Amino acid sequence: MGKIQYINDLKKWEQEFRFYHSVTVRFSETDMFGHLNNTIPFVYFEGARIEYFHTLGFMQDWVLPESDTIPVVADLQCDFLQQVFFNEQLKIYVKASIVGNSSVDLHYMGKKEDHSICFVGRGTMVQISKRTGKSIPWTELMRQLLEKDVPVQL
Amino acid sequence: MGKIQYINDLKKWEQEFRFYHSVTVRFSETDMFGHLNNTIPFVYFEGARIEYFHTLGFMQDWVLPESDTIPVVADLQCDFLQQVFFNEQLKIYVKASIVGNSSVDLHYMGKKEDHSICFVGRGTMVQISKRTGKSIPWTELMRQLLEKDVPVQL
Amino acid sequence: MGKIQYINDLKKWEQEFRFYHSVTVRFSETDMFGHLNNTIPFVYFEGARIEYFHTLGFMQDWVLPESDTIPVVADLQCDFLQQVFFNEQLKIYVKASIVGNSSVDLHYMGKKEDHSICFVGRGTMVQISKRTGKSIPWTELMRQLLEKDVPVQL
Amino acid sequence: MGKIQYINDLKKWEQEFRFYHSVTVRFSETDMFGHLNNTIPFVYFEGARIEYFHTLGFMQDWVLPESDTIPVVADLQCDFLQQVFFNEQLKIYVKASIVGNSSVDLHYMGKKEDHSICFVGRGTMVQISKRTGKSIPWTELMRQLLEKDVPVQL
Repeated sequence: MGKIQYINDLKKWEQEFRFYHSVTVRFSETDMFGHLNNTIPFVYFEGARIEYFHTLGFMQDWVLPESDTIPVVADLQCDFLQQVFFNEQLKIYVKASIVGNSSVDLHYMGKKEDHSICFVGRGTMVQISKRTGKSIPWTELMRQLLEKDVPVQL
Repeated sequence: MGKIQYINDLKKWEQEFRFYHSVTVRFSETDMFGHLNNTIPFVYFEGARIEYFHTLGFMQDWVLPESDTIPVVADLQCDFLQQVFFNEQLKIYVKASIVGNSSVDLHYMGKKEDHSICFVGRGTMVQISKRTGKSIPWTELMRQLLEKDVPVQL
Repeated sequence: MGKIQYINDLKKWEQEFRFYHSVTVRFSETDMFGHLNNTIPFVYFEGARIEYFHTLGFMQDWVLPESDTIPVVADLQCDFLQQVFFNEQLKIYVKASIVGNSSVDLHYMGKKEDHSICFVGRGTMVQISKRTGKSIPWTELMRQLLEKDVPVQL
Repeated sequence: MGKIQYINDLKKWEQEFRFYHSVTVRFSETDMFGHLNNTIPFVYFEGARIEYFHTLGFMQDWVLPESDTIPVVADLQCDFLQQVFFNEQLKIYVKASIVGNSSVDLHYMGKKEDHSICFVGRGTMVQISKRTGKSIPWTELMRQLLEKDVPVQL
């Protein structure tokens, strides 16, 4: 595994994750090359991120039709370290990395059953107003909840 | 091709289609068996149906956030006649078959570049109220537009 | 719920299912009408069917690169009885209905957490040769395993 | 639009693209927030990249069952600059940026009909052996074809 810009110390980075979401690779997620299609880890990231936000209590409001705020993806990236195959059980880990005013940088790690890492990723989410499209700052409570999950940088 | 319940006379049925929507099979739509995954023709049916409704002028209203009516699928079926492969160019034909009070039965036919039929299908769409979930009758104009497309049964 | 051709006695039909596969509705599986997109139950059917075949011991061979036989879908249908929403937990039931020489008719039932049925379906799978595309009869063992699951018709 | 690491001079970067692939946003690609789901630009990147490789003459060999080499994605990233909606017609531009021994860095740009950029991206593709999983150097011809498309850096 070559140098990945958003990972300083892989060992440390790997150990900082606490939350994960489990998925099993679907048949319809493979492609004719016989492995997981490259677009699917982003589907897994979304699923894991939503579960993560759900445990923080954010998602419940965002999906209410009357809620004006929704989370949107500002950017996303994935580094593919190993091929993944049909029916493999993966754990998709998520952690908050940097908390901004209305945004949060999330990191992702996909692990196989043998605990080897198959892909890693990151991406910034921003809370915006559905009506105006403008960013909306986190409430004090939201910020605290997110920051509690950011690993302490010594 | 065995007997398909919703097709009486295949030759006649085939010739009644006037509208089609073109698609090219995407790589991510194949699966590890090397062909088009069986769930994708339903994606193509949706694309063709929406284009079809668009030419009738229905879709434009349905997607307005303030519109109370939306079309929903009551049932869908597909008969797979030939395997389909990556990068094939398909024509997805659509026609109205039976027009109900608030519903329409649509028929579908997928053809390869050599004009052979690769899959056929049908399904009933119903216009409902987003608010109540109840069916909403077609306006007189909608009904006329749909009926104009139903082949005359002699 | 209107009359569905492949269901004679709904109560009896519902009780005959023994196998199910659990899914949670993903965010990316919703569409702008705010509910589960109509193409996704077919993805769930595939997932449940594969798990079902896996418990019978069929799937393990079919996915070996050296295996000449693969299962293909001959037809598929779905009747949508209720709207389904983001994050709902569904049980997707599968049972064998009619076992042919090289084919099997599978029935499907999707249930919400409140045990209400949200969609039902059926479809024929055929075992074919990857090389020739021709159908390949079940082995005696396969047939016995499938027939054991077909409800006794009194 | 903030600073994006892989774009030095946006104006220049934008003008270097020559190849594009057209897509129309499908209904099933939207989500309940009413816009294009964040996982879909990666599907569009794949489609555009494959068309791009097809025009270079690479894709035709890679999809032959007897071919030992296939292209795999080493990493992928996308920056989302604007929300995208149902039925919008997008042009997905692709260009080669850096040609390695067995890899190539591709850049992507999605544009709306009004020529505004809605998302940009990049990612490295590597040619590997299906059998060994090891990287396989480009042939001299492949390298020339890829390098011809890399914008001259003055």
